[in-house]
Amino acid sequence: MPRPDDRANDQLRTVRIQRGWLDHAEGSVLVEFGATRVLCAASVQESVPRWRRDSGLGWVTAEYAMLPRATNTRNDRESVRGRIGGRTHEISRLIGRSVRACIDFKALGENTVQLDCDVLQADGGTRTAAITGAYVALADAVSWMRGRKLLRGNPLMTSVAAVSVGVVEGEPRLDLCYEEDGAANTDMNVVCTGDGRFAEVQGTAERAPFDRSELDALLDLAAAGCAELTRLQNEALAR
Amino acid sequence: MPRPDDRANDQLRTVRIQRGWLDHAEGSVLVEFGATRVLCAASVQESVPRWRRDSGLGWVTAEYAMLPRATNTRNDRESVRGRIGGRTHEISRLIGRSVRACIDFKALGENTVQLDCDVLQADGGTRTAAITGAYVALADAVSWMRGRKLLRGNPLMTSVAAVSVGVVEGEPRLDLCYEEDGAANTDMNVVCTGDGRFAEVQGTAERAPFDRSELDALLDLAAAGCAELTRLQNEALAR
Amino acid sequence: MPRPDDRANDQLRTVRIQRGWLDHAEGSVLVEFGATRVLCAASVQESVPRWRRDSGLGWVTAEYAMLPRATNTRNDRESVRGRIGGRTHEISRLIGRSVRACIDFKALGENTVQLDCDVLQADGGTRTAAITGAYVALADAVSWMRGRKLLRGNPLMTSVAAVSVGVVEGEPRLDLCYEEDGAANTDMNVVCTGDGRFAEVQGTAERAPFDRSELDALLDLAAAGCAELTRLQNEALAR
Amino acid sequence: MPRPDDRANDQLRTVRIQRGWLDHAEGSVLVEFGATRVLCAASVQESVPRWRRDSGLGWVTAEYAMLPRATNTRNDRESVRGRIGGRTHEISRLIGRSVRACIDFKALGENTVQLDCDVLQADGGTRTAAITGAYVALADAVSWMRGRKLLRGNPLMTSVAAVSVGVVEGEPRLDLCYEEDGAANTDMNVVCTGDGRFAEVQGTAERAPFDRSELDALLDLAAAGCAELTRLQNEALAR
Amino acid sequence: MPRPDDRANDQLRTVRIQRGWLDHAEGSVLVEFGATRVLCAASVQESVPRWRRDSGLGWVTAEYAMLPRATNTRNDRESVRGRIGGRTHEISRLIGRSVRACIDFKALGENTVQLDCDVLQADGGTRTAAITGAYVALADAVSWMRGRKLLRGNPLMTSVAAVSVGVVEGEPRLDLCYEEDGAANTDMNVVCTGDGRFAEVQGTAERAPFDRSELDALLDLAAAGCAELTRLQNEALAR
Amino acid sequence: MPRPDDRANDQLRTVRIQRGWLDHAEGSVLVEFGATRVLCAASVQESVPRWRRDSGLGWVTAEYAMLPRATNTRNDRESVRGRIGGRTHEISRLIGRSVRACIDFKALGENTVQLDCDVLQADGGTRTAAITGAYVALADAVSWMRGRKLLRGNPLMTSVAAVSVGVVEGEPRLDLCYEEDGAANTDMNVVCTGDGRFAEVQGTAERAPFDRSELDALLDLAAAGCAELTRLQNEALAR
Repeated sequence: MPRPDDRANDQLRTVRIQRGWLDHAEGSVLVEFGATRVLCAASVQESVPRWRRDSGLGWVTAEYAMLPRATNTRNDRESVRGRIGGRTHEISRLIGRSVRACIDFKALGENTVQLDCDVLQADGGTRTAAITGAYVALADAVSWMRGRKLLRGNPLMTSVAAVSVGVVEGEPRLDLCYEEDGAANTDMNVVCTGDGRFAEVQGTAERAPFDRSELDALLDLAAAGCAELTRLQNEALAR
Repeated sequence: MPRPDDRANDQLRTVRIQRGWLDHAEGSVLVEFGATRVLCAASVQESVPRWRRDSGLGWVTAEYAMLPRATNTRNDRESVRGRIGGRTHEISRLIGRSVRACIDFKALGENTVQLDCDVLQADGGTRTAAITGAYVALADAVSWMRGRKLLRGNPLMTSVAAVSVGVVEGEPRLDLCYEEDGAANTDMNVVCTGDGRFAEVQGTAERAPFDRSELDALLDLAAAGCAELTRLQNEALAR
Repeated sequence: MPRPDDRANDQLRTVRIQRGWLDHAEGSVLVEFGATRVLCAASVQESVPRWRRDSGLGWVTAEYAMLPRATNTRNDRESVRGRIGGRTHEISRLIGRSVRACIDFKALGENTVQLDCDVLQADGGTRTAAITGAYVALADAVSWMRGRKLLRGNPLMTSVAAVSVGVVEGEPRLDLCYEEDGAANTDMNVVCTGDGRFAEVQGTAERAPFDRSELDALLDLAAAGCAELTRLQNEALAR
Repeated sequence: MPRPDDRANDQLRTVRIQRGWLDHAEGSVLVEFGATRVLCAASVQESVPRWRRDSGLGWVTAEYAMLPRATNTRNDRESVRGRIGGRTHEISRLIGRSVRACIDFKALGENTVQLDCDVLQADGGTRTAAITGAYVALADAVSWMRGRKLLRGNPLMTSVAAVSVGVVEGEPRLDLCYEEDGAANTDMNVVCTGDGRFAEVQGTAERAPFDRSELDALLDLAAAGCAELTRLQNEALAR
Repeated sequence: MPRPDDRANDQLRTVRIQRGWLDHAEGSVLVEFGATRVLCAASVQESVPRWRRDSGLGWVTAEYAMLPRATNTRNDRESVRGRIGGRTHEISRLIGRSVRACIDFKALGENTVQLDCDVLQADGGTRTAAITGAYVALADAVSWMRGRKLLRGNPLMTSVAAVSVGVVEGEPRLDLCYEEDGAANTDMNVVCTGDGRFAEVQGTAERAPFDRSELDALLDLAAAGCAELTRLQNEALAR
Repeated sequence: MPRPDDRANDQLRTVRIQRGWLDHAEGSVLVEFGATRVLCAASVQESVPRWRRDSGLGWVTAEYAMLPRATNTRNDRESVRGRIGGRTHEISRLIGRSVRACIDFKALGENTVQLDCDVLQADGGTRTAAITGAYVALADAVSWMRGRKLLRGNPLMTSVAAVSVGVVEGEPRLDLCYEEDGAANTDMNVVCTGDGRFAEVQGTAERAPFDRSELDALLDLAAAGCAELTRLQNEALAR
């Protein structure tokens, strides 16, 4: 089985990062990994949640959601169902933890950045696109805060980017699209910081358990993919 | 107080209607009324809700929602709050009723079209933009159904378009932006069919009650605005 | 099709307004439009919602609900379902807006009047009966407040009353009962102030869209009906 | 402390039972115990809940609720809060069990009677008034069913009535009003069948625990009160 | 029908009360009535609910729940269903009221004890086991508070214990197991204080109504059972 | 900082696996990792969820929850809050995926095993204890099914066990208790099958990102820990 879009196994899909997609948000990015399209908005609040008050520390949090027709068949809205599903909760928490990995909360001061990642269209890798885009929106929100003199220092210690990897028909592949994701044996999401270290590693055996050598090959592939995404983030931020 | 964007009182904002914005949906439109930006997706299901079964009739329904940072300050997600607010309910119902006004349910057969209108950015008139865009997405979904031979006839008896009007500082104005909406005395949303008749008229006194002559002036303005929107819808569908 | 109760097309049903139906509420009215029976209670609170504090302004809000067996077949309770339906939300909001149209919030001072409109029996026109009764309950609550010296002036700038109108078999008719409501082509709810101006106009094409001349005929009919209701409200308040 | 309305300790408040208060319900009663006013509606469904199907047996169930301004200060609606409180649940279950105590489910056949008891005004004893009224509404619904030939026999084996008793300042008293209820040491609700036996006994020590002799005195008082209520129910049903 | 475990009619099941079953809770008890096993945890908070503040009085409250596989067939979790059922509400309230019957709130001071009663395994009598165990956990929490000098006096005016009784095949029996509970005609839960008075009496006719002599026999049986449970509680607390 | 219980860095806490802790469940285990105590119940249903019907395949699913006083300070019940938190959702999903990794769904046939993992006491590693215990409960449920001839073959392809590892003060440590968990820089949960392969790897940078060599050291430690847990599971199952 060749890749549906004829990519090499270690090749990312076409990645587009459009900054300033919204007029109101302090930072906003429309990020695309191939046909996956996620709108990331960063909202700044000059306060922190109650449990964080008077600590001198800031906070960064994230929420992930999918429009009902982002996918091939329509999904009911979680607002209509009256509850958030487990998958949504899990991904929101992953994005939040990942982005917090690059933040110096002291430098942020008692400010909160809320990152909203809404999937407009899904073709695999929505959570990794969301993390990659959310970092850029966050960086823009940090610039906005710096312009308003809200910061004590530079809260961005490094950057974060994320990519999915998986074993499809015995081959480790980078940045799986939806079709590959469904065919993958092992599925892994890896979040790296700009300096090449790991913030999150989440690997799951979808069919058979995986051994250490497969795990190693996937980690290599993901680290290289994240490095390339870091380059694209920096390029976008330099524009 | 001149209009914030120097429009004439009877002038629409720049309206853009982009068809086919999503890969999966049977019809999809990104509609813009100035800075208001609504993504409308039409999803076809080859069945009807239970209460409609074995009637030979189809169904069309709509859901409206706003991304948390569509507005100037962030709003909590209704999925997180666990309940849909009254405003959302009210607008979803309005869109559904409006779009159903142009449908011949017998010709539609026992199929359902679900219209999802998600506001990506809000600057006043989100419900009227949603109705105007939803009609175009619906028309594309109808074409898709026709291609699949799912229909018994032409379910589109006419088209629908909608616009807001209001009295701002004594002057009737067409297609209010957010700033004007907040300053309006009377606020009215009008839905017209392609042949110039009314599907919905919803007028509200925001400050002082309005008299019959004001009402008449607003209805004239709205009818003309809807006629222009009908032209733009047809133009978009002809592309 | 003659009217089920042989009324003239421009004739209201028998309207009864019983004040003081409850012992505890600061104002309470059992209002009947024919077989439609709504209990309206006005509760005074000497404070305002948080977003209104320290503004010097009061607030008036409303909630509408229906007992499960108000209708021909039993409806599940919204408390049991765990969520309020769209129709209930929409009508609660309509009642609130309508009644606020007659209030001078400065004269009310930082007090809140909560209007509860509970439909004990439904035969069409429950929302218009509710608005008409709620005004009288509100007026009694205002008297109660005046007696307690809670007011800065007279918060009632005018009165409000509401009535439904519709086109049934080509004829514009006033104050539709349930049977007529189901048969109506166009259905409109109109809220007028005591001086004959409009606070709300909500017209919906139930079957075919309506044209301007139909709209005009319905508005005339509604305005006359509201004037008669205003007279009945004043009569009740004078007792 | 004399009784607020100068009743003798073993005297009921004025009890009024108005049948046929609603046009639609198969049985309906407005029952008053002094200022306590409960609307009881019986709805017949010619089927049973899923777990009861094909058993040949019927079902009777009840729901209790209070209008927001039934009480001295306004209570939030349970529909708005999105959940039913423990007290409401508890009373609904009590009414259901009590009324089922007089039913022969075989004679009822696979039919369901749903009893809705809505408190329009509360002055103590709402649950006992509800049970007393619900029985009469149920009896009327049974007559309606008999008229439609839906029954296999007479499902009413006996009647049920309920009353509260309590010890106030050392004295056992019958049918406590709200003020007495708050001052009572022991509070007991007793449900009796028409033949003088017990369907439910619920006694609670509100302040100090009670001993057997107090319990006995309260049971005597309650049994006599229920006998009198049974007489009033029969009188109402004979009208 | 002999008792499933060959007990005498006035005999309790084997009762075990294990104190200190949890490391964290201020008081904790694993209580067993035969195969019924309830974990009772007492949590101390050095504050009271808002409505109780500045009263100088403490508060004691309880929550009851059942693990999904406590019973013969699995029950869905109430957290998953998103709402607490009526039975759970009712029992939580019963436990709270019962335990509060032995408390001097002035001596407790502005502290709250929260009692959590989680049924690990159910074989009838879970609510009475919960009350019996909760008292012991509460007594341990009170000792803990005394050790911390949080108390103004001794808040335990007496003890409470509870047992179920019922009429099975015409015979009054003590402490019904699940099988007997299902076969019982009358079912009663009785809560007594350590000095032999009643805190709660809840009797329900499961099949036919019961007369005064049955009621008397059940109350005798229950009072003796509670006295025995009181002895076992004291024994456990003396260990 | 030495380990709070003086263990070697590569040493598990005392692990106890008690089978048959519940009378009703088809499999049940009380598993302890030191002071962490989780009750795992396996419930067999001879059917599958709707989306799985007529596939010939079985299903295994899991739910995780914590008693309110499992932890040092009391947590509100998720049933009372009316919604399941993100952490609970995430762990329930992890347990389900992990246990499914050892199942041959064809051999299971159209049966469902529901695993309920309720944390009675928490001292770190609740999710890994839950997975380790759930496997044993599952194995007992499989034996029960085999005894009833419900199976087509052996659905257990292998076993699963799980352990946490983390870097505390620069040292990789196995099976963290709560205190260590809070002090860990990197925190990883690893699920291995009985043959030493990986079913899940979830690593999170709690403070600073981690590099590949740290990751490798943690994976080595976890794999050895899981091998030891596998031995203890087999020992328990052999009893």
